[in-house]
Amino acid sequence: MNTETIVAGLKQVRESKPLVVNITNYVVMNNSANALLALGASPIMAHSQQEMAEMMSFAGALVINIGTLDSAWTPRMIHAVEQANLNKKTVVLDPVGCGASVLRTETSRQIAAWAESLIIRGNASEIIALAGERAQSKGVDALDSSEAAVGAARYLVEAYNCNVVVSGATDYVVTSQGETQLNNGHEMMPYVTGMGCSLSALTGAFAAVGENTGLAAAAVMGVVGEIAAERAKGPGSLQVEILDALYQLDEATLLKRLKIS
Amino acid sequence: MNTETIVAGLKQVRESKPLVVNITNYVVMNNSANALLALGASPIMAHSQQEMAEMMSFAGALVINIGTLDSAWTPRMIHAVEQANLNKKTVVLDPVGCGASVLRTETSRQIAAWAESLIIRGNASEIIALAGERAQSKGVDALDSSEAAVGAARYLVEAYNCNVVVSGATDYVVTSQGETQLNNGHEMMPYVTGMGCSLSALTGAFAAVGENTGLAAAAVMGVVGEIAAERAKGPGSLQVEILDALYQLDEATLLKRLKIS
Amino acid sequence: MNTETIVAGLKQVRESKPLVVNITNYVVMNNSANALLALGASPIMAHSQQEMAEMMSFAGALVINIGTLDSAWTPRMIHAVEQANLNKKTVVLDPVGCGASVLRTETSRQIAAWAESLIIRGNASEIIALAGERAQSKGVDALDSSEAAVGAARYLVEAYNCNVVVSGATDYVVTSQGETQLNNGHEMMPYVTGMGCSLSALTGAFAAVGENTGLAAAAVMGVVGEIAAERAKGPGSLQVEILDALYQLDEATLLKRLKIS
Repeated sequence: MNTETIVAGLKQVRESKPLVVNITNYVVMNNSANALLALGASPIMAHSQQEMAEMMSFAGALVINIGTLDSAWTPRMIHAVEQANLNKKTVVLDPVGCGASVLRTETSRQIAAWAESLIIRGNASEIIALAGERAQSKGVDALDSSEAAVGAARYLVEAYNCNVVVSGATDYVVTSQGETQLNNGHEMMPYVTGMGCSLSALTGAFAAVGENTGLAAAAVMGVVGEIAAERAKGPGSLQVEILDALYQLDEATLLKRLKIS
Repeated sequence: MNTETIVAGLKQVRESKPLVVNITNYVVMNNSANALLALGASPIMAHSQQEMAEMMSFAGALVINIGTLDSAWTPRMIHAVEQANLNKKTVVLDPVGCGASVLRTETSRQIAAWAESLIIRGNASEIIALAGERAQSKGVDALDSSEAAVGAARYLVEAYNCNVVVSGATDYVVTSQGETQLNNGHEMMPYVTGMGCSLSALTGAFAAVGENTGLAAAAVMGVVGEIAAERAKGPGSLQVEILDALYQLDEATLLKRLKIS
Repeated sequence: MNTETIVAGLKQVRESKPLVVNITNYVVMNNSANALLALGASPIMAHSQQEMAEMMSFAGALVINIGTLDSAWTPRMIHAVEQANLNKKTVVLDPVGCGASVLRTETSRQIAAWAESLIIRGNASEIIALAGERAQSKGVDALDSSEAAVGAARYLVEAYNCNVVVSGATDYVVTSQGETQLNNGHEMMPYVTGMGCSLSALTGAFAAVGENTGLAAAAVMGVVGEIAAERAKGPGSLQVEILDALYQLDEATLLKRLKIS
């Protein structure tokens, strides 16, 4: 049952404190590290090709986020994916802004094709663009609803033999077994930068303990965002409350709050 | 009338949610993105020359901030300014630390000379140094009062055919039509890093809806800083409260608080 | 007496607001700048070799943090250390993740060997690895207790003619005169990224006013962390409260709270 996977995953992350290697964008490095710490995992932000083989040998998962992509990042990302493959570790790809430029779309596809064990986590526009359909995006924000991206997500699941999480008002977790919907979260969350990036980082922590669907991270982030929004006055305090809520989250609250179908 | 410009600008930003492309420094990328989101705009932090033509084709404005400058950033900044020019978009230049090194002063002048539609936003030392006068600075902090930089700002308005905002205890918005003074803000604001950078980012959002003087952003930032300081215990909570206050700001509060002359 | 050094250092930092140049990692640039501002110092994050000679000519100290190291950073760090040496300024080295990769260990040793006036600030695993012993680390987190690293710290004091701060539940300040223990801080602090990096940045501010042991910064950070933890609900609010507490900290509170031996 899905909810058991989620609760068991949370427990395992907190007990084993897996190391998650992140090659992520400059904007969210701090948030992503803090989200992983608050959950109970161990983040490291590392990108040098001179140390990635060592890092991936003791890491639990690799998170690749292309938010501030340039030509210096691409070979490092590809090299890191190769090291993840060699060590049989899952790669979480966050294709930030996919569709907003050819560079982002092509690099996302290259990484997706290269990773042997893969979870893709993006918003509707990014998932649609990655699948080669025409998306409505504006920069890094999605204009399409997450529901509109489910078909694209199904295509990606098959094309890359991966699992896909489409974030939005409703989150869709799409695997070869079908879709799961999550209806937690809060409409204020898109007013804080990097919430999706934090979710991708948490997805890496759960993947490191064997929860490879992306479901547990999406469930935790949605519930935590909802709790935090009840306490927040605006996006500044929302970000603070999310880290506090992640740290405080217990299994009973998670299960009680969860809107899953 | 000035106050009408400010209120109309705020309304327009929230309605049209313009995309603002930022090439900014590593220190403030997160704050700047969050300030733009809290205001109601759409930020993207992108710098690659491989995607800047695409980005500027659908962006509303470009913000260039030289806070963590090196030789890899300069050609990207110049290329982005060229793309902004081609698309007839305004460039906001934040010449962080101008005067503290020859590199910063010369790069600032190069960008200012290159941009066809330009707003410069800096502290007194930066504006004085950019104009070629002798400024008193210490790193990225101004030692001169903003009043001392009004002459330099007037010079820049003419030399670069631009508008200039000098930030300080009093903010001066200098255009070819004359000066406007703003007396909002709070003395605790310089204890948070990147407040000026956030102002420059907001200036880009207003420029994207046609408010090209820099006045509306300075007014909003000053009022919001003042509201936030009343609620804050120190610079940590001030930063949080500023984002909350930006998000909550309504036109009546803005007009009531505004100290403009 | 030790406590006099600490209180005098705090007073001096606030009076002279020394400029501290930081070449630090992408994750913590914002926190480190904010910690220095909240303390009362002036941070600048600069790394270009084209401006480092100028920067170090008017800076009070240099902080080098290898948290997101790659081959582009190393020559800049070495060049900055050379400029610090030329200007007889102290270098604070934060060897983040030392021991987790050969790259990090060797670069840390190169910087330590190069700096003429040096303070090393790290966690137990980093200090042990830097000294060439076998450490237990996981990414950038220490698994060893700080006590286990005192021998390694003593070795480093002699090998590099420097002072060493080992952070942990107990902080050890190790100099050629012996060790001082600090028992402030709080167990929630490791759940916020970059707390050690902030301590290293503050160490630079005190070094700039002649407090070259690392003791004052460790005392201030420990006391402030303890105060903040009493007010915080989790790591999100802890980070906010730490900046507020740094800003508010007065000498009487510092002395009353200090657990030193």
